[in-house]
Amino acid sequence: MADNYLENKYEAYLQRKAAAEKAKRLAWKKRMDAYKKKLAEEELMNTINDFKTVSVVVFDADDTLWDNQSYYEDAEKKFCELMSGYGDAKYVSEELYRTESENMCILGYGAKAFTISLMETALRLGGDTLPASVQSSIVGIGKSLLMIPATPLDGVRETLEKLRGAGRYRLALLTKGDPLDQENKLKRSGLADMFEYVSIVADKTVKEYNDLCSDLNITPDRMVMVGNSFKSDIQPVLEIGGYGIHIPFHVTWLHEKVEEFDHHRLMRLKEISELTCLL
Amino acid sequence: MADNYLENKYEAYLQRKAAAEKAKRLAWKKRMDAYKKKLAEEELMNTINDFKTVSVVVFDADDTLWDNQSYYEDAEKKFCELMSGYGDAKYVSEELYRTESENMCILGYGAKAFTISLMETALRLGGDTLPASVQSSIVGIGKSLLMIPATPLDGVRETLEKLRGAGRYRLALLTKGDPLDQENKLKRSGLADMFEYVSIVADKTVKEYNDLCSDLNITPDRMVMVGNSFKSDIQPVLEIGGYGIHIPFHVTWLHEKVEEFDHHRLMRLKEISELTCLL
Repeated sequence: MADNYLENKYEAYLQRKAAAEKAKRLAWKKRMDAYKKKLAEEELMNTINDFKTVSVVVFDADDTLWDNQSYYEDAEKKFCELMSGYGDAKYVSEELYRTESENMCILGYGAKAFTISLMETALRLGGDTLPASVQSSIVGIGKSLLMIPATPLDGVRETLEKLRGAGRYRLALLTKGDPLDQENKLKRSGLADMFEYVSIVADKTVKEYNDLCSDLNITPDRMVMVGNSFKSDIQPVLEIGGYGIHIPFHVTWLHEKVEEFDHHRLMRLKEISELTCLL
Repeated sequence: MADNYLENKYEAYLQRKAAAEKAKRLAWKKRMDAYKKKLAEEELMNTINDFKTVSVVVFDADDTLWDNQSYYEDAEKKFCELMSGYGDAKYVSEELYRTESENMCILGYGAKAFTISLMETALRLGGDTLPASVQSSIVGIGKSLLMIPATPLDGVRETLEKLRGAGRYRLALLTKGDPLDQENKLKRSGLADMFEYVSIVADKTVKEYNDLCSDLNITPDRMVMVGNSFKSDIQPVLEIGGYGIHIPFHVTWLHEKVEEFDHHRLMRLKEISELTCLL
């Protein structure tokens, strides 16, 4: 009897829940429609906006919170030295870039993809004369990228703490690459506790930013994305009506290079610590 | 003036939103506390449950929706043949397993990790005498795993269609591994449209299943997980109070083998098509 009572309660609960979910979906659609209309008007007026609507600050990880690209450049330099018997550094680098580009659609980003591309490039350039010892060194170089320290860049920890302390913003992390590698870096960085929401995705395009908004239950004007890559962190966010804060890193991965442009919802900073003045 | 009006509206909206979010978090905590109490009582009574509370059916992907492991076993067989000059198949396989185990914490699961472990094992066993041509073949074997057809297993498409058609369940996919590889397989399988929610994670433990419940806004008793791996698909789900439906595949990856047990919220099926009788 007690069982029956519980079951009936659950049945009623399920029905209420289904109705609530449907209402939530409809409400979300309505909000998005209204927002799109507002966005279209705003684009027409070309209003200079000032982050007033922002409630979620989303951060990129690699080369925004910690140094990543320098380790890759260093690895590439070591690779070119190892392969110097088969061509000069420029040639070896170009061949590596070619392999990476060809592999991109199946291997994607990250240290494991890079390791496999290093090995393929070495095998293609070295042919039968490539010594096993060189191959071993190449695997070692690749794997070392899975253990980079991920020490927060200057000002990162303080800035995140200040933003959290202000209580006005929810902090999120959106990064692309291998989930395990990114999770491990986030752990090693000691910054994991700073973020309410962490998402590791295969690529950062309009689709992933829309998903992020849906997950966080916000319209895009509530979000500002902070990152070093114009292509992955800025362009798609502006496209869906969010805000972008571009903080270039001193090196940019060749695959991430893209033509930059100005936009009324985009701001450029030199250092992450400037965020606290802005937000 | 119109601007000011909009801004004020937004400000009010933000405040309402923050209050609603806080209420939502508190309500969620309350529901989880109540659920944990109910679960403890149920465990005491050892009630046989019948999926009545289930509203979300979560599927594993590899070896549940499509064949994956056979391709890996085939790749390993080819690898052992290539390396036959350095030891018999049993020895080479054991060495590969050792490399994979050592690499697990930094490389994780998936085809890229497997490729790197193949390369490393070959270099360790072959030493200076490993021909570059063999290594090239090994890279090819590894990369071929990123292009497996992901053809749905018998009955999969029909079962998913029937469950969707019934209108009682939301369908979700939870899979571990490399996001790009898993996304590509899902695309190739032609099943992507079947799922309302797709999540690709680094590992499937209690944490990931709790996150899934939170994302879908359900308590664990609303969820049944369908999968072939007792370790990844069943054990953690039972632990948090969800339901498990175990459909063993004809081969199990050595790393996934674990002692199985009976449980009143667990059911075993031979084929996925039996799901439609059960749910």
